[in-house]
Amino acid sequence: MAEQPTLYDGLISTRAIRRYLPDDIPTDDLNAIMFAATRGPSGHNSQPFRFLVLRRTPGAAAARALLAKGFALSWQGERHDPPAEDQSRRARMARTMNEFVDTIADAPVIVIACNRDRHSRTDITAGASVYPACQNLLLAARAFGYGGVITQWHHPVRAELEAVLGLPEGVVIAGVIPLGKPAGAHGPVRRLPLPDLVYEDTYGNAAAWAADPEGTRYTGG
Amino acid sequence: MAEQPTLYDGLISTRAIRRYLPDDIPTDDLNAIMFAATRGPSGHNSQPFRFLVLRRTPGAAAARALLAKGFALSWQGERHDPPAEDQSRRARMARTMNEFVDTIADAPVIVIACNRDRHSRTDITAGASVYPACQNLLLAARAFGYGGVITQWHHPVRAELEAVLGLPEGVVIAGVIPLGKPAGAHGPVRRLPLPDLVYEDTYGNAAAWAADPEGTRYTGG
Repeated sequence: MAEQPTLYDGLISTRAIRRYLPDDIPTDDLNAIMFAATRGPSGHNSQPFRFLVLRRTPGAAAARALLAKGFALSWQGERHDPPAEDQSRRARMARTMNEFVDTIADAPVIVIACNRDRHSRTDITAGASVYPACQNLLLAARAFGYGGVITQWHHPVRAELEAVLGLPEGVVIAGVIPLGKPAGAHGPVRRLPLPDLVYEDTYGNAAAWAADPEGTRYTGG
Repeated sequence: MAEQPTLYDGLISTRAIRRYLPDDIPTDDLNAIMFAATRGPSGHNSQPFRFLVLRRTPGAAAARALLAKGFALSWQGERHDPPAEDQSRRARMARTMNEFVDTIADAPVIVIACNRDRHSRTDITAGASVYPACQNLLLAARAFGYGGVITQWHHPVRAELEAVLGLPEGVVIAGVIPLGKPAGAHGPVRRLPLPDLVYEDTYGNAAAWAADPEGTRYTGG
């Protein structure tokens, strides 16, 4: 394993990674990443999460092709190609997203996070037993020198994808998580100012002690 | 900060903590924990998560009393008191849960994780933008020597609690997360065997490379 950050430093500097180097992820690393993902908590330790891994193998080709279609359809409405001279953050993000969508079929690994929902709950709280594991997955990827992002861009092809993956009745896709070695790098992330997000006693009442560390950079929600 | 684990070791050894020492959590630690929580990812970086912190202060008393009622009602149907000579894992867990519920009003800190759902999505995928932040919260707590657990046991008193907390229209409670210094300790967690949770290409097809590290202990889902 490459040098890795402390737990706390990892938490505050793991970025959404959408551009990958071509390198494969060795199965030893994948195993360690999935082990950490499955250590995530779930209600009553019911472990409803199931992770379906797609590597760049023939058995994954049909699902990958479908995902490429879904991602393209999901991004279609927002897609634009900024002029080359535009180097604004917004323009760079647009290029990253275009590349992400255009190359998703070749992402080193794509993990389909599923939820086996025995109680058929479809409200937000069902997510409390699967997304902590997804976050563990992203953080473990980071620990091993990789990165990824949780997406819902399979949505336009959801029914076909469920059939190709052979999902049984009652199992839903909670997210699609591409992984690979970052073409860029992890580092500090931008959020709203902390007092906008952290309250005390009543909603909207900024906690008096909530303050961002010096040098924190912001972005709107 | 106490000595903390590496990112990876933290991920694989953070337990649900339900028994707390009486110590308060200093606001400097709370601030650092909430900063890390809010570094969690969300769709389009929309940051719908809001964290409402209840310390042991007069302003939190009404909400804490309501939570005690909700937790008692939630646990009521499963509650039993094992005989003192029963030292099985099951009996110890029952005692932990009884104590958890009986003392929740005095937990050092209780965080109400909220989701400001501008698109009014109430399906599981809305959770993808709030529970990763909740997991960051639990892991950051761990980094600072604390622990907690995501619960939904406010459910019986949800409407009253929303009123006491002043939640506006469109904001929902995603979870209630008590935090404190563990009376026990963090350490390895029990899950199903990895091949039951990690598949390749199709659902139920155990990944050939998925194997638990030697010494892993299991529990059913």
